[in-house]
Amino acid sequence: MQLLKDRILKDGNIAPGGVLKVDSFLNHQIDVNLLNEIGKEFKRLFSDVKVDKILTIEASGIGIACVAAQYFDVPVVFAKKAKSKNIEGGVFSSKIMSFTYGKTYDVMVSVKFLKPDENILIIDDFLASGKAIIGLVDIVKQAGANVSGVGIVIEKSFQDGGQTLRDMGINLKSLAVIKSMDDEGNLEFED
Amino acid sequence: MQLLKDRILKDGNIAPGGVLKVDSFLNHQIDVNLLNEIGKEFKRLFSDVKVDKILTIEASGIGIACVAAQYFDVPVVFAKKAKSKNIEGGVFSSKIMSFTYGKTYDVMVSVKFLKPDENILIIDDFLASGKAIIGLVDIVKQAGANVSGVGIVIEKSFQDGGQTLRDMGINLKSLAVIKSMDDEGNLEFED
Repeated sequence: MQLLKDRILKDGNIAPGGVLKVDSFLNHQIDVNLLNEIGKEFKRLFSDVKVDKILTIEASGIGIACVAAQYFDVPVVFAKKAKSKNIEGGVFSSKIMSFTYGKTYDVMVSVKFLKPDENILIIDDFLASGKAIIGLVDIVKQAGANVSGVGIVIEKSFQDGGQTLRDMGINLKSLAVIKSMDDEGNLEFED
Repeated sequence: MQLLKDRILKDGNIAPGGVLKVDSFLNHQIDVNLLNEIGKEFKRLFSDVKVDKILTIEASGIGIACVAAQYFDVPVVFAKKAKSKNIEGGVFSSKIMSFTYGKTYDVMVSVKFLKPDENILIIDDFLASGKAIIGLVDIVKQAGANVSGVGIVIEKSFQDGGQTLRDMGINLKSLAVIKSMDDEGNLEFED
């Protein structure tokens, strides 16, 4: 998605340790016009699959999912992050290792909001190691529902999450795929 | 807002301890068509004030703010909740006491995303004790920006947050105001 790549080059910043900061338009301040274009592009990319519901994870996935959901005309469910070992009854949950925060946490979705045979599109802002998305896929499977696809705004293909998901047979589409970046501010997209 | 009140009566549940659960349409599963009607109503209610940016707080405010922002054609900024005493430089922050979780936490917004004299509309899902909103107002004032108004989806007028904000001279508008509710499932709105 050229508009998104241009925006990353213009307003993204590479912080030490290989962290791409897009907090001026995607995950702290949010350009809602850009989210609309992202939503339209997800609809175009997933126009050939059945989508009954969009699943994302708090916090930065929520805005993207809600704006995109308008193009699919379906509800959004967001998975909640909970302190480990503090799971109440009536939820599907999965453990996720966060490299950013250096700890393991549980994500959970109420059993009320994912039903057997529903077709679920998972949407999130970033895909790197893929741990969060694999946790969401696990939750969808616990519910007996189907993963229609995974839509990612920014994938880092130099980390292995994308490959892992594709090897699992997941229908993964990423709007901007970063092949490499370094602390000198160089950033290269996949074609 | 009658559509919202009807939905609360139809799909809301009163959990023990006076907690109104609206997780089937507002803050876990999200009815995005309802969010659109909420966004239009906020635009109507705040059509007479200048709004340069919408400020909300993670997680459940984000979807509401992003959908509403489309009607104002402005960006959204969401305040992040951080572990206490873990504030990095370059942020406006405020301490909030959460009655729901029984602890104090910091909320923060990067200094990059709130500027002096900007006109800020604060949006959130619930107003009860008002601590979260008062923290956001504090952050806006630290930035030297103006609070154009506060838009709330559901206010509980039997708690004192609304009165406190009105006494501060804040332009507060709530789409549904609950006067009373009890564990037997009775719920009464203000006129």
